[in-house]
Amino acid sequence: MAIPTTADEVRRLDRDHVLHSWSAQAHINPLPIKSASGASFSDYDGNTWLDFASQLVNSNIGHQHPKVVQAIKDQAEKLCFVAPAFANDARSELARLIAERAPGDLNKVFFTNGGAEANENAIRMARVHTGKQKILSAYRSYHGATHTAITATGDPRRWASDNSSTGIVHFFGPYAYRSAFGAKNEAEELERSLGHLEQLVMLEGPGTIAGILLETIVGTNGVLLPPDGYLAGVREICDKYGIMLIADEVMVGFGRVGEWFAINNWGVTPDLLTFAKGVNSGYVPLGGVVMSKAIADTFEDRPFPGGLTYSGHPLACAAGVASIEVFEEEKILEHVKDLGERVLRPRLDKMAVDHPSIGEIRGKGLFFALELVTNRETHEPLVVFNASGADAEPMTKLLAACKERGVWPFTHFNRLHIAPPLVISEEELVRGLDVIDEALKVADEYYTG
Amino acid sequence: MAIPTTADEVRRLDRDHVLHSWSAQAHINPLPIKSASGASFSDYDGNTWLDFASQLVNSNIGHQHPKVVQAIKDQAEKLCFVAPAFANDARSELARLIAERAPGDLNKVFFTNGGAEANENAIRMARVHTGKQKILSAYRSYHGATHTAITATGDPRRWASDNSSTGIVHFFGPYAYRSAFGAKNEAEELERSLGHLEQLVMLEGPGTIAGILLETIVGTNGVLLPPDGYLAGVREICDKYGIMLIADEVMVGFGRVGEWFAINNWGVTPDLLTFAKGVNSGYVPLGGVVMSKAIADTFEDRPFPGGLTYSGHPLACAAGVASIEVFEEEKILEHVKDLGERVLRPRLDKMAVDHPSIGEIRGKGLFFALELVTNRETHEPLVVFNASGADAEPMTKLLAACKERGVWPFTHFNRLHIAPPLVISEEELVRGLDVIDEALKVADEYYTG
Ligand SMILES: Cc1ncc(COP(=O)(O)O)c(C=O)c1O
Ligand SMILES: Cc1ncc(COP(=O)(O)O)c(C=O)c1O
Repeated sequence: MAIPTTADEVRRLDRDHVLHSWSAQAHINPLPIKSASGASFSDYDGNTWLDFASQLVNSNIGHQHPKVVQAIKDQAEKLCFVAPAFANDARSELARLIAERAPGDLNKVFFTNGGAEANENAIRMARVHTGKQKILSAYRSYHGATHTAITATGDPRRWASDNSSTGIVHFFGPYAYRSAFGAKNEAEELERSLGHLEQLVMLEGPGTIAGILLETIVGTNGVLLPPDGYLAGVREICDKYGIMLIADEVMVGFGRVGEWFAINNWGVTPDLLTFAKGVNSGYVPLGGVVMSKAIADTFEDRPFPGGLTYSGHPLACAAGVASIEVFEEEKILEHVKDLGERVLRPRLDKMAVDHPSIGEIRGKGLFFALELVTNRETHEPLVVFNASGADAEPMTKLLAACKERGVWPFTHFNRLHIAPPLVISEEELVRGLDVIDEALKVADEYYTG
Repeated sequence: MAIPTTADEVRRLDRDHVLHSWSAQAHINPLPIKSASGASFSDYDGNTWLDFASQLVNSNIGHQHPKVVQAIKDQAEKLCFVAPAFANDARSELARLIAERAPGDLNKVFFTNGGAEANENAIRMARVHTGKQKILSAYRSYHGATHTAITATGDPRRWASDNSSTGIVHFFGPYAYRSAFGAKNEAEELERSLGHLEQLVMLEGPGTIAGILLETIVGTNGVLLPPDGYLAGVREICDKYGIMLIADEVMVGFGRVGEWFAINNWGVTPDLLTFAKGVNSGYVPLGGVVMSKAIADTFEDRPFPGGLTYSGHPLACAAGVASIEVFEEEKILEHVKDLGERVLRPRLDKMAVDHPSIGEIRGKGLFFALELVTNRETHEPLVVFNASGADAEPMTKLLAACKERGVWPFTHFNRLHIAPPLVISEEELVRGLDVIDEALKVADEYYTG
């Protein structure tokens, strides 16, 4: 009985005993990872990759940051766990730090273990607070895989779990490049997507709708930035009809786009904001909801009908406190804004000139998507929606070309996302972009336009 | 920006910024806990309590076990996180250790962050595997607070979230002391509860039922041990109708009743078994599902439609490996059986003689409930079902009497549960029982029978 030390043994036990997320087990061969540091990680053969995905877009402060590692060790020595019913120093402090950074009057935190549970509880709060049941959420979204979260999800991961009515209705968010409204430009897309949402609210019945749940910037489904005015418009609809606005910042919170919370870019205050991932970079599982005063007040005299054994876990919270300190000390938000605008965006703009397969470039901070196409006129995607197997070949080859050259990006459908740890150096970023630039020739070969 | 060091400051930040589970926030005053060790924990004023609840029945190996703390520190130094798509040494080893200890052919593990997510995924697996949707679960149960888990729950915590049909139907499990079948004894209860379940399966339609979910031993809702033959009977019904048997061992797994899994006491193999809590005593959030070969095979060629960012978290898994090693080295299962039968049960039997308010004593290993009543003939409970506020006064006073004397038990409705860390010494156990013995005089005062 000992933790295995060779890649073969790690792999053998993994294949025998571990079921992996979202996969057909016979068709995957999980790579044993031995170590990670800053913006890169390594296997047992000494191969190293630049982590252009921050694992699952969660390693915001990079791997094995010594200050956060030390905080975990210190807290482990001190107190690993205490039940949610008690008060705990690390939890108190992290709640304060988050409240301080959250927009508007969002001042009270309910902690969970991850993003799905955060959304489950935000939806519960909106429902109890408004006394209404329905939730509107967007197509092309991901909110997690517990029942309400997966039902709210608007991507194909929902389909297998979509087995009953849970009071979720999907709407189309703005996505000018593939408009669901026949819009010709961003201005039209903005106007039509807000019009669509308000019609939907009217037809579903404002008196039935508890909340509108959306990713401030849609993450996995395409780095879809809301056009200026969209979030303010949704806020207005919510206010008009007594609907709670729930901003899912699980992927984009904590510096990914150069602000503590992405929504701060647009000066809009949601009623509920969910977070996970970047809150402590996943060093210890943690997520949560931060809520407005009105919602917190609802649970002053009336019990909050939710809970979990590990709510406000001390070890997870201590990692969160240390991580926020690192953000401040190392001026990470500034670094993200600087690298994003000075290095990343101009370089991607140049790639778009050189590579016909790049249909559109979207992003902010250290979070960008390349939308790959076979035709720039028709926007025909490089692979079909939800492609798998042979259909996905162009993307599989592109991904392999990146990995062979030491870069591990995130790909989804016909898109390549760039989301490195926020501590990445300019040199590393450029090195990774050189690789992607080279690898994109693979995608260009499929260009027919 | 620093973690607060005084109880006042911890409490102030907590009150300002933390929302606590299952509570009306204005009516609680969470006690700041400073430290914990073995079977006890302490506040900032130096008051120490014997932890007769193991926090939320999760601190199975006790607080701050040096070996597990060291394992967390070592793993933190080595690698805090890697995405679920990779293979990881600690995860591989923990999966092997769990598979080795799980009953029958349960050999593959899907890791989650906690118990609710474990049940969500077990239900998902049963549904995909059988192609059927309905789940039968028991009244007087708790399965977690995400949507499917809370809907499966059969206690009042479900009510506020019970807002849509999710294909869950509740049945009555065996509970001879308060029989739902008018049974006069255990044998009648066994026969009638199985008959009830089979009728329900018939009337709901076997072709619509994916799984039967039950706590092997019902935990929070009363330490309800299944009479011998019940689990075998449910297994038979499941086999007859092609229904998956899902055993929720979140609270009773990992030694609580002297076996790795409680179901091992009855030699029954479920199709899916869920765990959390005791797997690593909550030092780092962790849960999971271990599944039969048939279910694992379902996801060989067909993608498993579930996932979460922190599935198989290395830090959590390393704590799990160390914890299982501690169980072996310190012969914890043997200790639990020994203390449970030699010390705990006889002493509780004696208390039942001395205290009229004890209606029934139930339990196994280090997991017992005292069912408190005002009348031994009618079984009138000491407080009404789901009592709160003034209605709950007898229990509130009993709890206070225990706490004043340095023991922190778990109470629920009209019951006091005894669930100390499994490493508790005989001396500590007896000391705690002396306190409970004394405190029960408070309950006796309400006796009217
Ligand atoms: C926007 C968003 N919300 C929610 C989640 C779910 O988080 P978790 O995987 O921690 O449950 C994710 C995960 O990728 C996400 O990107
Ligand atoms: C039997 C049982 N199942 C599931 C859960 C839910 O676990 P968690 O709180 O980790 O979500 C609990 C928690 O008390 C439990 O006792």
